[in-house]
Amino acid sequence: MPPFFIINQSDKNTSARTGVLHTDHGDILTPCFIPVGTYGAVKTQSSKEISDLPSSILLSNTYHLYLRPGTEVLEKVGGLHSFMNWQGAILTDSGGFQIFSLEGYRKVTDDGVTFRSHLDGSEHHFTPEKIMDIQRIIGSDFMMMLDVCPSGDADHQTLVDALSTTTNWAKRCMKQFKETKSLYGHKQVLIPVVQGGTDKKLRKQSTEELCELEADAYAIGGLAVGESKSEMLETVEWMDEFLPKNKPRYLMGVGTPSDLVRNVARGVDMFDCVMPTRNARNGQLFTFNGKMNIRNAKYKSDFSFIDENGISPMSESYSKAYLHHLFKTEEILGYRIATEHNLRFYIYLMKTMQDEIQNGNFETWAKEFIMQYSNDEMSILC
Amino acid sequence: MPPFFIINQSDKNTSARTGVLHTDHGDILTPCFIPVGTYGAVKTQSSKEISDLPSSILLSNTYHLYLRPGTEVLEKVGGLHSFMNWQGAILTDSGGFQIFSLEGYRKVTDDGVTFRSHLDGSEHHFTPEKIMDIQRIIGSDFMMMLDVCPSGDADHQTLVDALSTTTNWAKRCMKQFKETKSLYGHKQVLIPVVQGGTDKKLRKQSTEELCELEADAYAIGGLAVGESKSEMLETVEWMDEFLPKNKPRYLMGVGTPSDLVRNVARGVDMFDCVMPTRNARNGQLFTFNGKMNIRNAKYKSDFSFIDENGISPMSESYSKAYLHHLFKTEEILGYRIATEHNLRFYIYLMKTMQDEIQNGNFETWAKEFIMQYSNDEMSILC
Repeated sequence: MPPFFIINQSDKNTSARTGVLHTDHGDILTPCFIPVGTYGAVKTQSSKEISDLPSSILLSNTYHLYLRPGTEVLEKVGGLHSFMNWQGAILTDSGGFQIFSLEGYRKVTDDGVTFRSHLDGSEHHFTPEKIMDIQRIIGSDFMMMLDVCPSGDADHQTLVDALSTTTNWAKRCMKQFKETKSLYGHKQVLIPVVQGGTDKKLRKQSTEELCELEADAYAIGGLAVGESKSEMLETVEWMDEFLPKNKPRYLMGVGTPSDLVRNVARGVDMFDCVMPTRNARNGQLFTFNGKMNIRNAKYKSDFSFIDENGISPMSESYSKAYLHHLFKTEEILGYRIATEHNLRFYIYLMKTMQDEIQNGNFETWAKEFIMQYSNDEMSILC
Repeated sequence: MPPFFIINQSDKNTSARTGVLHTDHGDILTPCFIPVGTYGAVKTQSSKEISDLPSSILLSNTYHLYLRPGTEVLEKVGGLHSFMNWQGAILTDSGGFQIFSLEGYRKVTDDGVTFRSHLDGSEHHFTPEKIMDIQRIIGSDFMMMLDVCPSGDADHQTLVDALSTTTNWAKRCMKQFKETKSLYGHKQVLIPVVQGGTDKKLRKQSTEELCELEADAYAIGGLAVGESKSEMLETVEWMDEFLPKNKPRYLMGVGTPSDLVRNVARGVDMFDCVMPTRNARNGQLFTFNGKMNIRNAKYKSDFSFIDENGISPMSESYSKAYLHHLFKTEEILGYRIATEHNLRFYIYLMKTMQDEIQNGNFETWAKEFIMQYSNDEMSILC
């Protein structure tokens, strides 16, 4: 059996590296971006379209799948891969972030978290053990441990308490994970989530406690929750220092194209974010020349192609004016075109970074990209 | 230049026939079904997906296109084919039916019709001549004449007046059509719309008056507007008697799969209807075993494929349970899967009828289809 993670090339000037994640549902080249399919479907896209992307992995949300279609259906059909006819890899979050970020009632105790469904108000209780069982039923290739994720403006004591609970739950997750087996015969990997907000000492403590579990990969949680961009970047730098070099690092819920470049430079291997899909449905497209709001009146008679850089078949088939028209008339095809474009732009960006790291040119390329791309963001790489 | 319409095979037992419509955007085998793309996009589908259908034609709505994107944009880009990157044929309605069926202010005079936009309440005036000019700008292969379409419960005098105005406007349409030219170099065909409700004498009169124009094809309007099914079928039978045999007949806005079969038996060559696309978005799928409402709870754990009859790639990739889940969670992918299925079912049904007419087996096949399909509709063919 090949090792789970291999680093192919480490950049000399930054912490960027290329590698491969081996899963029973295919190899994933890193650094990688993971499209989000909350309910087992990436918005507007078929599983075939997603599998046409070079990076065959998607993220689905445990909390949402637990509510709909529910574990009974997922167990009967043999897991999410089978349910959605998907041959690639799947990463599921733990549901923790969803519960902590959705409005409404929730109560955290040492045992777990009690919350009300955002659909019908029904009460549910998640424990670390239950989250393992649900992800066993989903059959995700990458399972996440249940963690407590405080908001970006949480006070010190809240961060301390969240860290303590997270470590305690992580131990219980690992115990339950080791005492259970994959239900459908493929390998599942369990990932703990480092917390500690933007406090260096707490980040170090959280990392040390979770590294004792000897997990195959580590996630950086508790960022992109309201802290400043420079705080986020500084925190990821600390994580680069604290986390084992030979294991993949997954920065959860990040981010803009520039964020991806900056955090690859800081040693991150895996990303997920709703931005390419969600922004697409609002008419915002990502291009190598920056963002484009296709609803803008200036596109009404702009008959040039949406993007001529080979990003997506649809972007090279339709004009900006046509896409503008589809958004004005709220045609579903418009959301499809924009989503396909943005996802492919993100995947293309990751592929470009892989190539530039491999060629030893990453730092130069990254600075240029950020200069060109981020006229409305701070133009720093490191 | 080949003749515009050729009849290949006439059925011995019914008025059904197969044929070919020659257009500068490809040949269309008849009887044919024309998918509706109101704003220059068939809901949820790309133009590539529609062009993959064996019948490469779609309908778009003049009234809607006139409002958005507007004739200025369409003229600049060189017509709708270019705007939506569509190589197949296009039929546009006249806008008349839209104006008469939308709620709100409208006033018909001999000159034309004044109405308010359903978008912003702005006032507009359509004349027969203007409708010709707009369809010249759209560049549709099949242009429709402006007509007055009364509702199914209109009294006799209303039908008489509508007929009279329709004939008058038809003459003006033909005059304007002859005095203008295609803007983009391809042939356009102009189709008058026979009115007269379900009154045999009026239908005869309308047909005779419009046949004097020697158009290339004739449309049957004023049906599927609230009359009973048997009234509709009887009226189409009269039309079969009155209309020239050697010209294509287009039954506007019809209908269910059984309607298509029954009206093909009555000599109709062309159909359009929003039913396959609209019903798809409500979760209703058409199959050879009848209708299926995928929202029904019985599909929650039904992991069999949506349809195994080779109708559509997606219907053979995803289970009923997955599609049920996508509708429950309002995922756009669900609307796409159902729409692709229904459109392909309709096209497959037309192809089947073409084959059965060609084989001399149409009547037997049609009776069986209606028996099997229409457990909730009257099981008559002729």
